[in-house]
Amino acid sequence: MFRMVDLIEKKKAYGELTKEEINFMVSGYTNGEIPDYQMSAMLMAVCFCGMNMNEIISLTLAMRDSGDVLDLSKIEGIKVDKHSTGGVGDKTSLVLIPIVAACGVPVAKMSGRGLGHTGGTIDKLECFEGFDTALSAEEFFNQVNQYKVAITGQSGNLAPADKHMYALRDVTGTVNHIALIASSIMSKKLAAGCDAIVLDVTVGTGAFMKTKEMAEQLAHCMVNIGKAAGKETVAVISDMNEPLGCTVGNAIEVKEAIDALKGNGPKDLMEVVYTLGTQMMLLSKVADCEQDARKKIDEVIENGQALEKLRQLVTAQNGSDIAIDHPENLPQAKHLVPLHAKRDGFVEKCDALRVGIVSMKLGGGRKSKTDTVDLAVGVTLCKKIGDFVKKGDILAYLHSNFEENDEMLSELEQAFDFSDNPVECEPLIYKIIS
Amino acid sequence: MFRMVDLIEKKKAYGELTKEEINFMVSGYTNGEIPDYQMSAMLMAVCFCGMNMNEIISLTLAMRDSGDVLDLSKIEGIKVDKHSTGGVGDKTSLVLIPIVAACGVPVAKMSGRGLGHTGGTIDKLECFEGFDTALSAEEFFNQVNQYKVAITGQSGNLAPADKHMYALRDVTGTVNHIALIASSIMSKKLAAGCDAIVLDVTVGTGAFMKTKEMAEQLAHCMVNIGKAAGKETVAVISDMNEPLGCTVGNAIEVKEAIDALKGNGPKDLMEVVYTLGTQMMLLSKVADCEQDARKKIDEVIENGQALEKLRQLVTAQNGSDIAIDHPENLPQAKHLVPLHAKRDGFVEKCDALRVGIVSMKLGGGRKSKTDTVDLAVGVTLCKKIGDFVKKGDILAYLHSNFEENDEMLSELEQAFDFSDNPVECEPLIYKIIS
Repeated sequence: MFRMVDLIEKKKAYGELTKEEINFMVSGYTNGEIPDYQMSAMLMAVCFCGMNMNEIISLTLAMRDSGDVLDLSKIEGIKVDKHSTGGVGDKTSLVLIPIVAACGVPVAKMSGRGLGHTGGTIDKLECFEGFDTALSAEEFFNQVNQYKVAITGQSGNLAPADKHMYALRDVTGTVNHIALIASSIMSKKLAAGCDAIVLDVTVGTGAFMKTKEMAEQLAHCMVNIGKAAGKETVAVISDMNEPLGCTVGNAIEVKEAIDALKGNGPKDLMEVVYTLGTQMMLLSKVADCEQDARKKIDEVIENGQALEKLRQLVTAQNGSDIAIDHPENLPQAKHLVPLHAKRDGFVEKCDALRVGIVSMKLGGGRKSKTDTVDLAVGVTLCKKIGDFVKKGDILAYLHSNFEENDEMLSELEQAFDFSDNPVECEPLIYKIIS
Repeated sequence: MFRMVDLIEKKKAYGELTKEEINFMVSGYTNGEIPDYQMSAMLMAVCFCGMNMNEIISLTLAMRDSGDVLDLSKIEGIKVDKHSTGGVGDKTSLVLIPIVAACGVPVAKMSGRGLGHTGGTIDKLECFEGFDTALSAEEFFNQVNQYKVAITGQSGNLAPADKHMYALRDVTGTVNHIALIASSIMSKKLAAGCDAIVLDVTVGTGAFMKTKEMAEQLAHCMVNIGKAAGKETVAVISDMNEPLGCTVGNAIEVKEAIDALKGNGPKDLMEVVYTLGTQMMLLSKVADCEQDARKKIDEVIENGQALEKLRQLVTAQNGSDIAIDHPENLPQAKHLVPLHAKRDGFVEKCDALRVGIVSMKLGGGRKSKTDTVDLAVGVTLCKKIGDFVKKGDILAYLHSNFEENDEMLSELEQAFDFSDNPVECEPLIYKIIS
């Protein structure tokens, strides 16, 4: 009925694709009738001609429906999913999930390993020896009903159209377009079956979105998609110009998360956790208002329920909880190499991307899917933007398993800029869009 | 050394690809290391971002060098090739080639069957029973040396990169871009090994280029490529808003060509033939100036040498020359169906594209490579733009092998528009670019 080449020509001429045309395209691509070379031409045409909101919604729903759509109705309560567009030192989930679960939000989280400067949440949780990320649907549902929280690796055949298109975009220079990013993220979230979605859209050097305008566009777009699919959706736009918190790695981020659950989290990390947690609790209706939500979060941290929830999660999935009480049991790098300041001054910049790349080069992240992650390595930041340092002060540590670290140190040093005058920090939370 | 995805990103950001990058891309694509899906994304990016002249030249030379480059040095004289961007009723080659060969230009022509409203030159020549289009290189060279003319089907492995890219462009909506069209045409011409090239760039409804601006751009681009490759190149831009001459088909075009060689050609066809012939003779140095060339063409038509040259070509390649003297021996359609004018008036329009489509639907052309061509069918035009007609006059004839022709007649009728006032014709030759 349709021919893909006609749809490509239509898009190339800035035409609007109908829902039927998009369904034809996505289902044809999923079942192999439309070849990669036509889809990549279409994706490139979309990069130049864009898609309007109707097209983006049709594309997302078609990708959602290209495979299984999970039914979480066996889980009690309003299930709220959370997704971050990614950042450097982004251990938010490790802190946020136990907190909101302790507050009563059912968290049925499917998480990937992903690519990036550090491992994904799944990698980080594997710092707890024995932690099992392959739950059956039955185990997954039961655990959420019992403990309000379970985290499993991606299973089933969720949004296969997106999976294929994402792999294609990666090698055809068509990753970076709002319509394609938004539909990719949302198709997976919608297929994962939750009732409501909170999105953490990061912006800055360490984020996928480099400008506030782009981040805002993406956030609006995803919120519109979520609503069109009948799911309450909120997006929080947060700064990612410097790494979040003081650690970038895997085990060292887990330790920072444990500290945070004990009430000793760094200010920026906690602000993001409180903001996202508040939105999740409001959507899940376990809090009436922002104030109520923040108070409940304060409580579960103070009374230890948040930390206890992490322990439940780890032990329910066969992980050892020794590291929760004795973090020295987490994987440790052989060398702790300090980076000293070469001048006095206020830290003006601590470039998240550069710190992230150092972490990846130390072995803490994946460049390609088949890379293995070294859980022990990474970077600890001792100074953050706005801090005053004196020449000789320690700015950061490398956690390294390399014998020779001079090159890494020099790369890390380039992440920092200094000013003679006091530096004002950008607000961490830029906007909340709902 | 290079990665295709980086080259795609570079082009997508309006960057200029270097010669080395283009060589990497073309050779990688030819040997299968670069997959179709990356090439199609690149082609689409080129459609939006364009290529500058340096890039286009690099691309053309890389495609030329992707396979065999013929060595025609065994043929005496300055070999001039001719290429047309295609039209409706375009039997130019059938008239032009015998004429210039009779004037002394060595014509070593490789011709395709192609797709379109009628068959290609090769199909048309097969109207002469037994005509053999598969010559060995040896036969080809010898025949040109002996008779100054030979026409063979495409053989060898000429510009395989272009062959693959053309097939890919056809199904990915990336056919229609000057840089890609120019490099495609010129890579094949350059690989075919002639010393100089005359291009017939058609413009109008029946041509690939719809506007004079586009035609001129394409002509300039191809002339620049030819020169950069060290070949004298001239482009003639000619009108293709109405079909050329009075016939659109295969056998009926052959008959018209024979008549033209006998001195009875329609004015528009002959003007194109004289113009292209003059350019070929100048490049081949068998004429000193335009006047000299036109005089020589007059002579070989008047003294019968041009017709004799066609006979030599046909018989040298094992074809029967009976039809040259007795055109009634050419394939004949079962039905000759007249189209009558429904009003008085001056013919204002005779849409080449619509006439071409009627010819194709009658079976005279190919929609896809595997279609066979019915040599007998087509359309004869009795009136051309500017002619006055009276109601009931015959405008045209269908040559049809169908029993039922009302639909075709009505489609043909739509090609014509009439005016109450005299109509001024556009000049046939718009520009000569060298």
